[in-house]
Amino acid sequence: MYKVAILGSTGYVGEELVRLLYNHPSVKLTHLSSHSYQSEPYSKVYPHFKDLVDEVCIEDDLSKIDADILFIALPHGIASKVVTKELLATTKVIDLGADFRITSEAYDTWYKVEHFGKEVLEEAIYGLCEWNREYIQGARLIANPGCYVTCSLLSLIPLIKEGLIDTSTIIIDAKSGVTGAGRGLNIGTHYTECNESIKAYGLTSHRHTPEIEEKLEAFGGKKVTLTFTPHLVPMNRGILTTIYASLKPGVTNHEVNKVYNTYYEKEQFVRLLGDTSIAETRWVKGSNFCDISFKVDERTNRLIIVSALDNMMKGAASQAVQNMNIMLGLEEDTGIHYVPLFPA
Amino acid sequence: MYKVAILGSTGYVGEELVRLLYNHPSVKLTHLSSHSYQSEPYSKVYPHFKDLVDEVCIEDDLSKIDADILFIALPHGIASKVVTKELLATTKVIDLGADFRITSEAYDTWYKVEHFGKEVLEEAIYGLCEWNREYIQGARLIANPGCYVTCSLLSLIPLIKEGLIDTSTIIIDAKSGVTGAGRGLNIGTHYTECNESIKAYGLTSHRHTPEIEEKLEAFGGKKVTLTFTPHLVPMNRGILTTIYASLKPGVTNHEVNKVYNTYYEKEQFVRLLGDTSIAETRWVKGSNFCDISFKVDERTNRLIIVSALDNMMKGAASQAVQNMNIMLGLEEDTGIHYVPLFPA
Amino acid sequence: MYKVAILGSTGYVGEELVRLLYNHPSVKLTHLSSHSYQSEPYSKVYPHFKDLVDEVCIEDDLSKIDADILFIALPHGIASKVVTKELLATTKVIDLGADFRITSEAYDTWYKVEHFGKEVLEEAIYGLCEWNREYIQGARLIANPGCYVTCSLLSLIPLIKEGLIDTSTIIIDAKSGVTGAGRGLNIGTHYTECNESIKAYGLTSHRHTPEIEEKLEAFGGKKVTLTFTPHLVPMNRGILTTIYASLKPGVTNHEVNKVYNTYYEKEQFVRLLGDTSIAETRWVKGSNFCDISFKVDERTNRLIIVSALDNMMKGAASQAVQNMNIMLGLEEDTGIHYVPLFPA
Amino acid sequence: MYKVAILGSTGYVGEELVRLLYNHPSVKLTHLSSHSYQSEPYSKVYPHFKDLVDEVCIEDDLSKIDADILFIALPHGIASKVVTKELLATTKVIDLGADFRITSEAYDTWYKVEHFGKEVLEEAIYGLCEWNREYIQGARLIANPGCYVTCSLLSLIPLIKEGLIDTSTIIIDAKSGVTGAGRGLNIGTHYTECNESIKAYGLTSHRHTPEIEEKLEAFGGKKVTLTFTPHLVPMNRGILTTIYASLKPGVTNHEVNKVYNTYYEKEQFVRLLGDTSIAETRWVKGSNFCDISFKVDERTNRLIIVSALDNMMKGAASQAVQNMNIMLGLEEDTGIHYVPLFPA
Repeated sequence: MYKVAILGSTGYVGEELVRLLYNHPSVKLTHLSSHSYQSEPYSKVYPHFKDLVDEVCIEDDLSKIDADILFIALPHGIASKVVTKELLATTKVIDLGADFRITSEAYDTWYKVEHFGKEVLEEAIYGLCEWNREYIQGARLIANPGCYVTCSLLSLIPLIKEGLIDTSTIIIDAKSGVTGAGRGLNIGTHYTECNESIKAYGLTSHRHTPEIEEKLEAFGGKKVTLTFTPHLVPMNRGILTTIYASLKPGVTNHEVNKVYNTYYEKEQFVRLLGDTSIAETRWVKGSNFCDISFKVDERTNRLIIVSALDNMMKGAASQAVQNMNIMLGLEEDTGIHYVPLFPA
Repeated sequence: MYKVAILGSTGYVGEELVRLLYNHPSVKLTHLSSHSYQSEPYSKVYPHFKDLVDEVCIEDDLSKIDADILFIALPHGIASKVVTKELLATTKVIDLGADFRITSEAYDTWYKVEHFGKEVLEEAIYGLCEWNREYIQGARLIANPGCYVTCSLLSLIPLIKEGLIDTSTIIIDAKSGVTGAGRGLNIGTHYTECNESIKAYGLTSHRHTPEIEEKLEAFGGKKVTLTFTPHLVPMNRGILTTIYASLKPGVTNHEVNKVYNTYYEKEQFVRLLGDTSIAETRWVKGSNFCDISFKVDERTNRLIIVSALDNMMKGAASQAVQNMNIMLGLEEDTGIHYVPLFPA
Repeated sequence: MYKVAILGSTGYVGEELVRLLYNHPSVKLTHLSSHSYQSEPYSKVYPHFKDLVDEVCIEDDLSKIDADILFIALPHGIASKVVTKELLATTKVIDLGADFRITSEAYDTWYKVEHFGKEVLEEAIYGLCEWNREYIQGARLIANPGCYVTCSLLSLIPLIKEGLIDTSTIIIDAKSGVTGAGRGLNIGTHYTECNESIKAYGLTSHRHTPEIEEKLEAFGGKKVTLTFTPHLVPMNRGILTTIYASLKPGVTNHEVNKVYNTYYEKEQFVRLLGDTSIAETRWVKGSNFCDISFKVDERTNRLIIVSALDNMMKGAASQAVQNMNIMLGLEEDTGIHYVPLFPA
Repeated sequence: MYKVAILGSTGYVGEELVRLLYNHPSVKLTHLSSHSYQSEPYSKVYPHFKDLVDEVCIEDDLSKIDADILFIALPHGIASKVVTKELLATTKVIDLGADFRITSEAYDTWYKVEHFGKEVLEEAIYGLCEWNREYIQGARLIANPGCYVTCSLLSLIPLIKEGLIDTSTIIIDAKSGVTGAGRGLNIGTHYTECNESIKAYGLTSHRHTPEIEEKLEAFGGKKVTLTFTPHLVPMNRGILTTIYASLKPGVTNHEVNKVYNTYYEKEQFVRLLGDTSIAETRWVKGSNFCDISFKVDERTNRLIIVSALDNMMKGAASQAVQNMNIMLGLEEDTGIHYVPLFPA
């Protein structure tokens, strides 16, 4: 049994990690840290863990933690301060925040704070499991991808890599459930302010934009500048991305299908719906699946790709566990082979 | 007091008409027809009308109806059979369905049924109040615009008319509340099937597409082929359209602002938010407003327009009443100057 | 035109008052005060008022306010400090908070703070319009009833007054939408914490309990001790009360019906559904109606009364306007004869 | 591996059984029957099972089914026709409908149809695991309890058995999510008709009433007549029961606590919150837990018990699997030890 610690265990992502790791057969949760709920029993913070995880939350202090694997689920700007070469010498780290996902230049520009961990940043491996598996195996530090990003990258990389779409035409119109905004109190996520309404936010400036562009270049082999517009939807979980791009001349839906199959046919957690049914968030909730579907708009020669995942799972916690499984040489689906829960 | 009849008064749009006309100072509801609830008191079908509208629903038979104004809120394919030259000789008609909105060719293609009322179709005036006011004044037959269409047209016509955007790049990503799907039972709108989930539907084939394209040409002066993708959002009311288009070289946000102001500054029911705040459906619910906002994505030179309206109101019933007011020479906002209801 | 000021205009109740009074034909809004949003345009705080109420919010300072009528929509404990004999000499006051609703003894016990306005408290008239109309007419200070309380009192007073039920057996199981909790940020009303869940709260200790009991005695003529249990329901608006009480021997549903009719048949805003249909919150939303229905459980000889109102309207703002209308000698339904909005 | 068949696998309860049994280590799903979706791949009916359960649904014909265990998830009135002594000779049956839960007399009265399976009815064992474990072990036919009933019985049996409450005063005010109404189309569960509203239904006549009363007598040892009022809440899953009863003279919260502890302290799936925190549906969703809390109302000497479970899980499918585990001599929590999913 590997010893696992979580920094930031009482945010929504931390709590989802606790749920998954509690039932994981190869690990044992040894330290749950929390800035806000230090010294409180975990099951008091989250009563659904009553009789399951009644341990007391400890402070966010790495010196108190002795673990084989450390998950970090903290706001950006903190992980880059606490992850050091010394820590990595003894502990495998999976960071679920933004600090190790992009170059320090992009980080400075989009996050508007200076990056503190440039030294270890070089060592970080991007944890998009389906595309980076071999590097993840030997990694000491994983940057777990953002929720919008995972859905966008899985949809776009094959098409860019195989040159099916005009990369100057990509528009990602994304929709997210409210858990994506976290547990911090905010007028925008007060029940009566977001219930029964939909809005766009972060237009032209959302921080997942540079992450998507950098990784499309890294995995797809082409520099891309795109438009990304997220929306807040009155539901707890789920991300849907509706992606638009012009097809290269002569490309048909047959080829799109073929390319997706080439890359994902053997992937357990990417499900291809082709162009006969359309992805919806309800079919992936509570699971590690990313469902991908598409349609060719023959009147405009545009490709429309609709993909869905659970932002708390494949978009955060269960992909982090998938990364851990790869790092530890376990079966990749250990502890995360949940069937989606429906209706939920 | 004008006598008003409603064909199809027990669908959601019909019911919203009843609500608005019940409180309208210049009209009197004299006939409420219903195919499904014939002979039942209206307030039994819709208990919120108890003590207010207890009249019995009559059958859908025009020969039983004697009215100055007739609203038709029926599924497509019916209005075109019942509206005749004879009827128009005595009664002003406002049709809230699709039968008189587009050319019979487009109708045949997209609705996949033959159009029966080609003769009267020529006489139909498109009821987009802000753009067709002078023709509406003298009309006998109004084709009230579709919900997605109203939001899209009000957002796009000024920009196309003034040549600010590249019309080959227009993409409309639209999001609607579930009332848009009507009151008919359907597995897709069963509570537990659409609650807590978002989906795209009608990809590349939604029937509002030709209506948007035809009217952009009619009012904007340019032939347009575009991509339109509607989504179903777990909320009762509201439409949000997120529209993408490439700006013509050199066009700035200043010019976009100026053009919108030129056309809408004096319009009571179009509210311009500029590029400093973003439209949300919650701010227009229960009202006849269409809120328009935008943002220039400088990295890609794209314009992103975000607009919102209440699909039951400006997208259907209150715009129909606005049309009636214009036809009758009343103050245009009579009976429809509701402040949005929030939180609702 | 009467000049109207609102203290606390940016809470949900204040905002609903602004909406109603903006469209009220006999008043003019002259001062909107706000502690949190002082100096901000009202339509920036609540964008649904854009182009309608763009005035700047002023500070909560009575000396700056010159008005014929003053509405106070502030947290408890504040109104009792600002309402003085001097103020009442020149201004009619309608307080929507708790400070003038109950005796100072009950206030001290249940609210756990000392009551500061004992002197003016004596002068306060309880604003349950249907039961206290004649005193409201001449009042200078109105205590507008609580939301749960209005629904409970309208349901119970006739039965107690006529001796139909055993008053020692009354249990009120109430359910409220989340607007009832106000706009203040709180983990319990964070979207993802209350969406898709129902909970009871304030068991045996909710502050509306003494208000219900006192007023049942005042209007029903009998001292009552009862159990009141509120629940939070994942919806924006609406209160449903399910009330249980044992019938006195021999009382039938016929008599219950008769008693309700005796008291409410001529009341415009109380709608009696009898025992053939059951009240639901959706049928009263956005209106000043209170719908009352009941059923006799013959197996247990219990009466079950199910009543519904909109907590923001008859439960707060529109009842306050109804009180104002009575005080000013206007038609009682002026500015509040809205048909419920459905689906909303 | 035991072979398992499900009759009625495409209703919500059937589908939840498929989810649980798909991941259950000791069984293999061999037959999924469906009246409505015969010959369709299961994952086409429920796309969340894509790549997991792609088998074709077969017709509802027992002669085609060869299984060790048969789950029946069909509307009432069907199971009693298909379950025979011959079937029971070879197959263990767990019925999730109402046919074998109550006496044929009560069935005839409350369900208003004649009971067809009186012969096998005698053999049916009531599957309330925590209270009937020893009979379940040897059973051939299990009547799995109703959702409201499980929550009510687990809350009340200990108190009645130990004589803490006056059984003539019991009132159960219950609230359910919409999955409880099933997948069949109905105006009452059309999204826009039940979203954002709460209603009571089945007043004095809900069919779970006799089941609760019969089993309270069977397990609690006292004949009880009570009032049961269910409500429909706008959420997918979950049941909350708020139960009222007068305490016998002298009974304190200490004793209530003690009695609950006596019976449930060792029960894995009943969690006691005592009188310090209150059960909410969000803390049990997706799990087999029933959470029980209470409060003594000292002013009225009433006990208020608030309990919560997931109607699809402990209220249906996971309790059925729990019953199967007991029958097969497996660890009782096999395949059902899910941590609740939150926020969901």
